[in-house]
Amino acid sequence: MNLKFTIAYDGTEFAGFQRQGGGERTVQGVLENALFKLTGEDPKLTSAGRTDAGVHARGQVINFFTAGKIPLHRWLHALNSNLPRDVVAWRVEKVPEQFHARYRARSKIYQYRLLRRQWPDVFLRNYCLHYPYDLQVEQMKQAACYLKGYHDFAAFAAAGSAVKTTKRNLLRLEIEDKGDELFFNLEADGFLYKMARSIVGTLLMVGRGKTTPEEIKSMLAGRKREAAGPTAPAHGLCLVRVLYEGRDF
Amino acid sequence: MNLKFTIAYDGTEFAGFQRQGGGERTVQGVLENALFKLTGEDPKLTSAGRTDAGVHARGQVINFFTAGKIPLHRWLHALNSNLPRDVVAWRVEKVPEQFHARYRARSKIYQYRLLRRQWPDVFLRNYCLHYPYDLQVEQMKQAACYLKGYHDFAAFAAAGSAVKTTKRNLLRLEIEDKGDELFFNLEADGFLYKMARSIVGTLLMVGRGKTTPEEIKSMLAGRKREAAGPTAPAHGLCLVRVLYEGRDF
Repeated sequence: MNLKFTIAYDGTEFAGFQRQGGGERTVQGVLENALFKLTGEDPKLTSAGRTDAGVHARGQVINFFTAGKIPLHRWLHALNSNLPRDVVAWRVEKVPEQFHARYRARSKIYQYRLLRRQWPDVFLRNYCLHYPYDLQVEQMKQAACYLKGYHDFAAFAAAGSAVKTTKRNLLRLEIEDKGDELFFNLEADGFLYKMARSIVGTLLMVGRGKTTPEEIKSMLAGRKREAAGPTAPAHGLCLVRVLYEGRDF
Repeated sequence: MNLKFTIAYDGTEFAGFQRQGGGERTVQGVLENALFKLTGEDPKLTSAGRTDAGVHARGQVINFFTAGKIPLHRWLHALNSNLPRDVVAWRVEKVPEQFHARYRARSKIYQYRLLRRQWPDVFLRNYCLHYPYDLQVEQMKQAACYLKGYHDFAAFAAAGSAVKTTKRNLLRLEIEDKGDELFFNLEADGFLYKMARSIVGTLLMVGRGKTTPEEIKSMLAGRKREAAGPTAPAHGLCLVRVLYEGRDF
């Protein structure tokens, strides 16, 4: 049986999603440990995206195969009872054998949060980048227009992952100005390594007047990482949702 | 010079506000350590309320006397630079000598948050009580009417603090139903030890049909702690604001 779970986690205390060689605490690690306890199996777990250390998720999607006997309606309770408090599974579905959380994903939605007030909010310190600087939001929105669409995003990808192509379709890049908070909503058919955070870091440089919106075009064309802005810190980023073909598959 | 600060803290990692004998991490402790670093003085710090371990604050008020040379407009930056990330000072005022954060407080406002959806929210796990049970909110509101006003709240006070009287004026007790979340907003001229949480715990018993609203009257009259409901967990509670005479003094 192929099971698909939608999960949320607070990335603060994790060394990222993906299980690593050492003793690092990872989301995949705590999930696989819980599954082993529940089923006695050692399932190979697949995720829609491997979020970095400090990055959060509201709607990460995973799937794995199990021959276990737990009825579908008992799975969430069983799994959550075996997970630490910073990971929660909130949806489970039985999916066709060919479903694969990563390969079948049509697009992913990330949100980056900025807190602009003078002093940080203690309750949001791990979930928003505190950024008490003047920003020209209209300039940032103009720059976002140049980034949207199908481009080679090599200038917005960190080295460190082998990909066939650095071309991606950035379907949505909205900047929502909500008083003290600024939200960046990004949707793409796929994100290169640290792409969402490089885009946000570059838009912030535009907002502070260190780069013009028009320079985005030469950054994209030049394909050089050092031409774009810095990578924004991980803790402002959250994987909100993963979309699949059909009824979310 | 008598200085009044308004501060926020995430109570999760604190053993309460008040400095204790052992090596416990307390809000008062980290504040006094920061003040000592800044001024070389060892100021006796007064707070409006001594919140318990796990209880949060958005608008706790403290005051202390200093002969230090830091200009008023530099104080917030100086203090915040010496505080850990879970405490932030966001307002400072020079106040008359007779100002005392506790004795001069006219009333305090607390909020208790409940999350009612089936699975917990990882991002709110330290700030809301997860309570996925059916609640008769109208019954709770009726019970709140009996609690509001000037009463002897002995049945809603935990042992452990010496007070002259257990009579208090509960000026406000609102229950706000906001979809997944339920907020309890409490304002009183003073709160007995664990009074806010005992009131919430009792209202939850009413909401679940284990007590009728009318029984509130006999609880108040009987003055016995065991007649009222249990003390709700600390992490759902937050000290929102402290009000003083005049323009907040």
